[in-house]
Amino acid sequence: MRAVVRRNKQLVCDEIGELEPGAGQVLVKTLACGICGSDLHALHHMEHMIELGKRGGGGDSGFDPTADTVFGHEFCAEILDHGAGSAKTLKVGTRVVSVPVTLTATGAEMLGFSNRLPGGFSERMVLSEQLILPVPNGLPTEKAALTEPFAVGFHAVAKARMDPNSVCLVVGCGPVGLAVIAALKAQGRGPVIASDFSPRRRAAAEKLGADIVIDPAQESPHDRWEGLGVPKARAAQSMIRMMGGSFGQPIVFECVGAPGVLEHLIEAAPAGSQIVVAGVCMETDRIEPSIAITKEIELTFVFGYTPEEFAQTLHSLAEGQIDVEGLVTGTVGLDGVAGAFTALGDPEAHVKILVQP
Amino acid sequence: MRAVVRRNKQLVCDEIGELEPGAGQVLVKTLACGICGSDLHALHHMEHMIELGKRGGGGDSGFDPTADTVFGHEFCAEILDHGAGSAKTLKVGTRVVSVPVTLTATGAEMLGFSNRLPGGFSERMVLSEQLILPVPNGLPTEKAALTEPFAVGFHAVAKARMDPNSVCLVVGCGPVGLAVIAALKAQGRGPVIASDFSPRRRAAAEKLGADIVIDPAQESPHDRWEGLGVPKARAAQSMIRMMGGSFGQPIVFECVGAPGVLEHLIEAAPAGSQIVVAGVCMETDRIEPSIAITKEIELTFVFGYTPEEFAQTLHSLAEGQIDVEGLVTGTVGLDGVAGAFTALGDPEAHVKILVQP
Repeated sequence: MRAVVRRNKQLVCDEIGELEPGAGQVLVKTLACGICGSDLHALHHMEHMIELGKRGGGGDSGFDPTADTVFGHEFCAEILDHGAGSAKTLKVGTRVVSVPVTLTATGAEMLGFSNRLPGGFSERMVLSEQLILPVPNGLPTEKAALTEPFAVGFHAVAKARMDPNSVCLVVGCGPVGLAVIAALKAQGRGPVIASDFSPRRRAAAEKLGADIVIDPAQESPHDRWEGLGVPKARAAQSMIRMMGGSFGQPIVFECVGAPGVLEHLIEAAPAGSQIVVAGVCMETDRIEPSIAITKEIELTFVFGYTPEEFAQTLHSLAEGQIDVEGLVTGTVGLDGVAGAFTALGDPEAHVKILVQP
Repeated sequence: MRAVVRRNKQLVCDEIGELEPGAGQVLVKTLACGICGSDLHALHHMEHMIELGKRGGGGDSGFDPTADTVFGHEFCAEILDHGAGSAKTLKVGTRVVSVPVTLTATGAEMLGFSNRLPGGFSERMVLSEQLILPVPNGLPTEKAALTEPFAVGFHAVAKARMDPNSVCLVVGCGPVGLAVIAALKAQGRGPVIASDFSPRRRAAAEKLGADIVIDPAQESPHDRWEGLGVPKARAAQSMIRMMGGSFGQPIVFECVGAPGVLEHLIEAAPAGSQIVVAGVCMETDRIEPSIAITKEIELTFVFGYTPEEFAQTLHSLAEGQIDVEGLVTGTVGLDGVAGAFTALGDPEAHVKILVQP
């Protein structure tokens, strides 16, 4: 079968071996699979990603960055066949999504970052029966394929210590920031300030329900806190508390993932801010701990989602609580993937590109 | 009156002007005042501290680091006189402690970091009637003077999201780490692991009730997590959760405040750790955000305490819930302060030195 293979830090279309589903597994046809920012990064920097994983105590996953990998972890697929000894709860022809993990006899394979099983940039995949979820009727395939990236936003919001007075700022409106905005608005949270240099991304943020959308080249989003009832300085906050008053709790979602952004937020955000770090900065970063200390900043680093959060996100998409109309700005076949990786470097060109193998 | 004055980055004993308490103020005689790590730092690096404060949006406090300053914010004092128009709730001769703030007509002065009012390294101070607390009978002056540093530990523990399954590691057993250990044990928390290179500090940690005391030159404290029911890797934690099980929540108190410690903890602590950053690192620090992200680390930077926490700490000291016997390892007069600053550079020499003006 055909797949896009990462080989020598290049993406090449090639034939790879056919798959045989085992017990508890299903063979699926990939209908659509999104390209993620982590794919763009991994194309060139997989070795560094693995090294950082080891330093964090992740152990040796056995993943070999010099061997072939088929990316793709944001997919919607259709059941073609069941492995022998499977429960067959879902029939052949059912459209499904899944957390990008396949359970095998030798352990869990991370689809899209595995040498053993291909991810969604291939014609077919092997998924685990116990992890697949049927796509509710009426939810188009291209929207179902967005379950995975929107689950990332759902999880980030779940990690925020939100209360009815929370005021939220989403910094960066790429796919992660948009998913955070969508999750906040699906939960009826507000006001939500969104900030991005890109007009295209600001338009998407507005469409997903951000209440205030800011171009940081024109205005600092941090100038808006006080107007929304959040005093920025600790002294002003203490004074209000001493008088028995209360004020909005500032929550910042960092969805850029570039060096320097964290320190900028530590300096610019209100004292007492919880900064939920959802943007994945793969480089060493510098911070001034003493500023974070005197302001009592909290940095909550978040990653992934639980299977329950993934299922809830699918539900929100199907029920229309998250309206992703217009977010898919391009589709390509397998031979268009390499070009799509290049095109995604320009934030004005695209929001999300789906691969249809 | 006599005081130790910071002048040209030196400590000199000199005469300073007499104080006149205003309305709502009391004149007190300083009985004892501890030397804090922040005093040691401020002696040479006050300009840098002020610059960092401004970058954090603290505004211009009007504090001039080139003008004379009298340090000292950990004090116990005795009321000598009341300003005209004061409530006089506490009589002359009453021993008192206070958060190191004096309210004046022109704003709040931070005692110990003010050009306008002296801190505790002087014979007398002016305090605010509404902030002073009487020292309960029976609590010796030297112990009452420890209220301020122990309130720092009380606050750090209050910021930790503790549950009955929490397992705590205190990294660094200087005054901040010891205060954290004391607050944890006063609340009946355990197990508490404490780690420090210094034998003297380890002995103090043990005396304050740390359950496991480790010399990191001999053994990594992070080798103890699994034995205390905290799996370190995310994969193992996920597996336990999938099976419906639970495990101890790891909480790390960073009480060293030196560059590199945070990143070491991000790499070595269990996934999902809350790292409460109580050690004040005054230099730029480097972190690897991507490791913190994949491990879902939370960095909770904490500072100071509330007036309520200060009062509760005084109560804990008076009731013997915190036993500080033996922590004061030296006392000096005003002419011994400069020498004491030097002596405190060696962790083996002292835990806490009190100035008795």
